[in-house]
Amino acid sequence: MSGHEPRRLAWAYLSKVVQGSCPPLARLVAAVGPEDAARAVRERDLSSFLDRRTSARAHLDTAARDLDLVTSLGGRLVTPDDDEWPSWRLLAFDGLGDGRDDGGPLALWVLGGRPVDELVARSVAVVGTRAASSYGEHVTAELAGDLAAEGWTIVSGAAFGIDAAAHRAALGAGGLTVAVLACGVDRAYPAGHGRLLQQIARDGAVVSEYPPGTTPARYRFLARNRLVAGLSDGVVVVEAGWRSGARNTASWGRRLGRPVLAVPGPVTSAASTGCHRMIREGEATLVASAADVVVEAGPIGVEDGGGGPARALDVLAGDAAAIYEALPAHGWRSPRALSEEAGIPIERVRALLPALELDGFVGSDETGWFRER
Amino acid sequence: MSGHEPRRLAWAYLSKVVQGSCPPLARLVAAVGPEDAARAVRERDLSSFLDRRTSARAHLDTAARDLDLVTSLGGRLVTPDDDEWPSWRLLAFDGLGDGRDDGGPLALWVLGGRPVDELVARSVAVVGTRAASSYGEHVTAELAGDLAAEGWTIVSGAAFGIDAAAHRAALGAGGLTVAVLACGVDRAYPAGHGRLLQQIARDGAVVSEYPPGTTPARYRFLARNRLVAGLSDGVVVVEAGWRSGARNTASWGRRLGRPVLAVPGPVTSAASTGCHRMIREGEATLVASAADVVVEAGPIGVEDGGGGPARALDVLAGDAAAIYEALPAHGWRSPRALSEEAGIPIERVRALLPALELDGFVGSDETGWFRER
Repeated sequence: MSGHEPRRLAWAYLSKVVQGSCPPLARLVAAVGPEDAARAVRERDLSSFLDRRTSARAHLDTAARDLDLVTSLGGRLVTPDDDEWPSWRLLAFDGLGDGRDDGGPLALWVLGGRPVDELVARSVAVVGTRAASSYGEHVTAELAGDLAAEGWTIVSGAAFGIDAAAHRAALGAGGLTVAVLACGVDRAYPAGHGRLLQQIARDGAVVSEYPPGTTPARYRFLARNRLVAGLSDGVVVVEAGWRSGARNTASWGRRLGRPVLAVPGPVTSAASTGCHRMIREGEATLVASAADVVVEAGPIGVEDGGGGPARALDVLAGDAAAIYEALPAHGWRSPRALSEEAGIPIERVRALLPALELDGFVGSDETGWFRER
Repeated sequence: MSGHEPRRLAWAYLSKVVQGSCPPLARLVAAVGPEDAARAVRERDLSSFLDRRTSARAHLDTAARDLDLVTSLGGRLVTPDDDEWPSWRLLAFDGLGDGRDDGGPLALWVLGGRPVDELVARSVAVVGTRAASSYGEHVTAELAGDLAAEGWTIVSGAAFGIDAAAHRAALGAGGLTVAVLACGVDRAYPAGHGRLLQQIARDGAVVSEYPPGTTPARYRFLARNRLVAGLSDGVVVVEAGWRSGARNTASWGRRLGRPVLAVPGPVTSAASTGCHRMIREGEATLVASAADVVVEAGPIGVEDGGGGPARALDVLAGDAAAIYEALPAHGWRSPRALSEEAGIPIERVRALLPALELDGFVGSDETGWFRER
């Protein structure tokens, strides 16, 4: 193989160096482009924060090899450069902190033929305990199967138990499903799910923010849960213990402003304890059917006419929301005026405006930027 | 038998004439006493509202016979004259309307040896569908048994299914239970529960606001549900269809300011549909165990030190709350001053103050009325 574009090689290098989310690096890339950012990382010509975050792996350049490997598996590296980048979905991360695993992914390694943005345009995360009961597997199969049959993509983590039942139900219904991994997409994890992951890649996508060869680790599972929630319109927990990965995914759902839903079960079943407690403590809304899920996770703003601005403020968060709000209802603003109005650095405003335009929230002409109606 | 006190005969007569709740009549009795009220009813010397409400049965005087009958069954008529009258519990009805079945009971016909006020001092209603599943009966047995073993009286409606399971669990745990009937306490309804009702009367109480001989009727079941909620610290629904008596009891619980709780079950079970929807729509809090119920229905104000005034304002409603609030934190007020301050007729203030005193919220001396600390 070889012969990758320099810009894509730079993305692959950066993905390898940061191993996950790094909002300051993403902002640097948005400002100067991936090649200059990669050069700065390589030469350690960085802010002390970014230097600390990248110096340990700055010398590792496996970019060409990683791209070769994912290509040989029929996959690809998807970056904000690509049309299929799900920027609309990932805007919700903009409002969050700059912690190690708090932001959106820098890039996504993907197996599967469909564009990622289309796959997750209408998607629900269905997650739960590995120690699922037969009730839990049955309910997951019904719920995920019904949702998939109605055109919802089922996003989950490919774990044993509820996750696997959700993926399988989507496949069985002839629907779409996305598995988000805590390791490289070249690794079958858990090992027993090799065939399932192949089927998911064929009919949907297997996705990871980690480059090929990355092994699973506890913090990567937590970061993966954040992506499962981030790539979905809502999070449904079917069975979960009180301390479980599924509750972590649910808490990411809340943080990202996604509806968090939980399916009840017999109070005599330990597997439903977490769901019941989440409902009881107001952390999740009870859902008993796919129809209930659609009511909660369905298109926003449909009920009140679906006007553009209401929708924008529902889905935008953080700087993106502040920039949107700084635009007048009628008329134009320059990036500099928006920067002053919103109190956000001009570089950040310049980086976010194209994303907002791509998602149809704002438009631009020779006069400046304006709200799309 | 015979030889009943004239005052008690008057209560029995009034209970027979109004057949249930009649707040205007209760106020008349509080103002002039039962004998003068009975005379006014008999002679139709009444407001047109009360005349309409009582004229159809004013000529029926079965008071002595009714009292004889209930005595022969080992029972009694309990009225606001009696120390065991659960006035504290029934204050919640004061804030409600003057509809036919909206108020507290005028009097209670009771089988069972224990004082009613003690029986319901710490009590939970456990209700649900007649068409209970084995899961529902199992969970009811666990929950009601655990609550009864911890000293909670289980209040229910003696119906088939969840109600019966709740009563039986309380009896089985050696605890207390109260059955509230929609017919006279001399009738075994449902017929198959004759023996169960005898056991309940032996270890707790069988209660009705209708005189002996009254047959069940649909509106009496709804009125009965209101009393089930009214006599309890909280309402737990174990299994219920969407349109069911148990939901009616739950809605009375809400109206009376009682915590309304629902037990989830498999989403595959039609018997849990009503519980799930109540939880989903915020009409009930999910509970999965007796411990959850105790947290919700347990003593009010315990968490923040249990001060008197906070507790009073939590449990008082309507005129009673207004009169309590019209009292200064320190010092005294006359009934007339309270009437002016609270905007409540002086007769009503005079009628409610003794009830508030009986319940320990207010006190009086030669100077006037004051808040109890």
